[in-house]
Amino acid sequence: MTKTKVNWQAIASELEGIETTDNRDRLTKLSLDYYHFSPILFEQLQDKRGDLAVFPTTEAEVVRVAKICVKHRVSLTVRGAGTGNYGQCIPLKGGVILDVSKMNRVVWLQPGIACVQPGVKMAAFDKQARAIGWELRMAPSTYRTATIGGFIGGGSVGMGSINYGQISDRGNLRRVRLVTLEDEPKVMELEGDEVKKVLHAYGTTGIITELKIPLAPAYPWQEVIVVFDEFMSAAKFGQALSDSSGIVKKLVSIHAAPITAYFTSLQDYLPQGKHCVLLMVSEYDYAPFTDLVREYDGEITYSKTAAEASKSTSLLEYTWNHTTLLARKVDPNLTYLQTFYFTLERVEKAYAKAGDEVMLHLEFLQAGGKAVPAALQLIRYTTEDRLNEIIRDREADGAFIANPHVYTIEDGGNKQIDLEKVAFKQKVDPYGLLNPGKMRGYAIEQKSKVKS
Amino acid sequence: MTKTKVNWQAIASELEGIETTDNRDRLTKLSLDYYHFSPILFEQLQDKRGDLAVFPTTEAEVVRVAKICVKHRVSLTVRGAGTGNYGQCIPLKGGVILDVSKMNRVVWLQPGIACVQPGVKMAAFDKQARAIGWELRMAPSTYRTATIGGFIGGGSVGMGSINYGQISDRGNLRRVRLVTLEDEPKVMELEGDEVKKVLHAYGTTGIITELKIPLAPAYPWQEVIVVFDEFMSAAKFGQALSDSSGIVKKLVSIHAAPITAYFTSLQDYLPQGKHCVLLMVSEYDYAPFTDLVREYDGEITYSKTAAEASKSTSLLEYTWNHTTLLARKVDPNLTYLQTFYFTLERVEKAYAKAGDEVMLHLEFLQAGGKAVPAALQLIRYTTEDRLNEIIRDREADGAFIANPHVYTIEDGGNKQIDLEKVAFKQKVDPYGLLNPGKMRGYAIEQKSKVKS
Repeated sequence: MTKTKVNWQAIASELEGIETTDNRDRLTKLSLDYYHFSPILFEQLQDKRGDLAVFPTTEAEVVRVAKICVKHRVSLTVRGAGTGNYGQCIPLKGGVILDVSKMNRVVWLQPGIACVQPGVKMAAFDKQARAIGWELRMAPSTYRTATIGGFIGGGSVGMGSINYGQISDRGNLRRVRLVTLEDEPKVMELEGDEVKKVLHAYGTTGIITELKIPLAPAYPWQEVIVVFDEFMSAAKFGQALSDSSGIVKKLVSIHAAPITAYFTSLQDYLPQGKHCVLLMVSEYDYAPFTDLVREYDGEITYSKTAAEASKSTSLLEYTWNHTTLLARKVDPNLTYLQTFYFTLERVEKAYAKAGDEVMLHLEFLQAGGKAVPAALQLIRYTTEDRLNEIIRDREADGAFIANPHVYTIEDGGNKQIDLEKVAFKQKVDPYGLLNPGKMRGYAIEQKSKVKS
Repeated sequence: MTKTKVNWQAIASELEGIETTDNRDRLTKLSLDYYHFSPILFEQLQDKRGDLAVFPTTEAEVVRVAKICVKHRVSLTVRGAGTGNYGQCIPLKGGVILDVSKMNRVVWLQPGIACVQPGVKMAAFDKQARAIGWELRMAPSTYRTATIGGFIGGGSVGMGSINYGQISDRGNLRRVRLVTLEDEPKVMELEGDEVKKVLHAYGTTGIITELKIPLAPAYPWQEVIVVFDEFMSAAKFGQALSDSSGIVKKLVSIHAAPITAYFTSLQDYLPQGKHCVLLMVSEYDYAPFTDLVREYDGEITYSKTAAEASKSTSLLEYTWNHTTLLARKVDPNLTYLQTFYFTLERVEKAYAKAGDEVMLHLEFLQAGGKAVPAALQLIRYTTEDRLNEIIRDREADGAFIANPHVYTIEDGGNKQIDLEKVAFKQKVDPYGLLNPGKMRGYAIEQKSKVKS
């Protein structure tokens, strides 16, 4: 849409002093995330490319970029490390890609709370925070490369969610500074419940320039693999550990037997046919943890102290959507579904009907005051129709599916149009330039305006 | 039983080198706890007195005391600070009172875990632990004076239980060293699930000499009072806060309107007729906490930072059974019931039928992976029959009552005879000398032995 009219070289000149690139290869890389986990999104998104990437280092530079985009009415899509799976940062209509990776300063860091720029990488942040006894409350399996801003804008849960729930749970984000796309871009701050307007909004409601985030007390996390003969024993053990108030943990991830074969570098610890649980447990609570393992007839095949674990790949990188990543390395025909089963009864039913087509994989997290199993189950993909059939079937059984095969905010996890977010977008992005096409509610609103 | 035959002066002589007393006034004080909260227990226990109190300072001294008691076949009842309410440490058959208050050394203190002697006072311990960033996982409202050993032997829950559940939850006690009452007293160590044998056993299964306990990360706890027009709004707010994974808290205590009148020194913050919630919330999470208060239409009438709160009486000392204590100061005719309602539906039903006779008071705690309301409801006492009628009525509604008007382990919280505990007692206390009369299961076992 914007492509035909825009003189990108002129825009690049106007941005002088800020790093930019129009190199085709770089733009291709900067127009990707992990949407290729979905064959459906792959078809829809593979040819989408930004026209110019820009790498601001300060909020003032972000304001300059915003102003120039508004002036030329070109789209602007914000990008962190591109570790999302929903095509969150794919520039559907081309335009400017604003890469925040150079805004990577920890503004301040105090016990319990920190203020960071959006491009701060999560693992790098934790290294600093742990020096004063704290760490991030939650982080995805892409922890090593993901940015904090990207996680806030496009993520939802991760390791630590067994304690702190979802990012959207009140308290897990305190303040957001953002730049609007008005004719005169403004710097705004949202605090308290207001921060919801940017949470999981894929950067459609302003450009985040600073975040105030709460922290968790840091523990030395023992990394452990426990194997079980029966899948449901593994699942029940996961629930019991999640419900054990006296045992501090950070990650509880359950994998049905066929999945273990995809963890090629862990084969020594994964006896064939056994189901496995990948864990991070406080070193201080390791003894009572082993009592729980005994109660559930599990077998510990791998156990590393935090110091030992830091020398190799963290078990985190086999969980959440890294499971999908590793499975797809072996079998690119695999895709996944993001499912909340809420109860073990539903998990058991799903496991019984999984057959060869579905491989169950659960992570436990706090939701509504309870530890519930979420499932990033692996699917042997055949057709879109069959995939949708599976979705409808699981939904009929009472599961909630955050469909990862759609790229709009609403059709994925949120399910419904958030009128507050839409209204806020109309205010901060009156020309609809921010990551266009991702907020369905906004598109509908715009169409109805045209009609009326 | 033992009284008639025993030469207490001779025993005192044999204990030379260990502090003892047979002073009547001191023995009277050392034969008390807060059983007088119950008019029924008061009748049963008021005349019980120990014959000789002993104050060992080391485990070796405890072994000497044990050996002498066995030799003379005299009862031995262990005592911490005497802050229990069930008559846990009342010497039903007289004998030796072993007061652990001089065994008050912190053996070692590390991040996440500590080893202490049983007589260490809880608040004093926390002062040391907080210097390295940690604190006790849970503590009762008698925190300032209670000993850690007394809490393990006779307690169950307290502030912090909203995070860590009950002491009996796996992981909340790691190792216990104890001295047996065999002919040759032994020193034993119980680890892991084995520690259950001394938990809430009232000192009937060995004399605790050392405890290894896990710690919680220390926070600066803001102390807050929130008031509500409706009791159920207060209760629902308490549940919502308890379920809020993103807001760290330590104490959630709800009081129906009539109770607030008993908190005489807080009258400035307790408008008449309003229902109140007494809280400890992480200072770091105070902002999102106030958003939650707003959502539930509560009004904050009192808010002190941890530093400010440390200068006056902690709100803790208005909660749990301190509520009963303060209410009885105004109206000695009041008593209480310790009730687990589990759900707000049951609380609402109980509130509807409370009338003038029952005043609802809830504390939330983690149980089985959920935050549930426990109720130390106040009762205007008339007769034992009527009290039992109320108990039966609430039990019929699905509540669980840990009856505080009985002094045996089984008839109070545990409800059933723990055969493992009984078997363990037979081994470590073959003559049945430890706190006799408190373990009903043991008494039954002994009778059946005599018959056979």
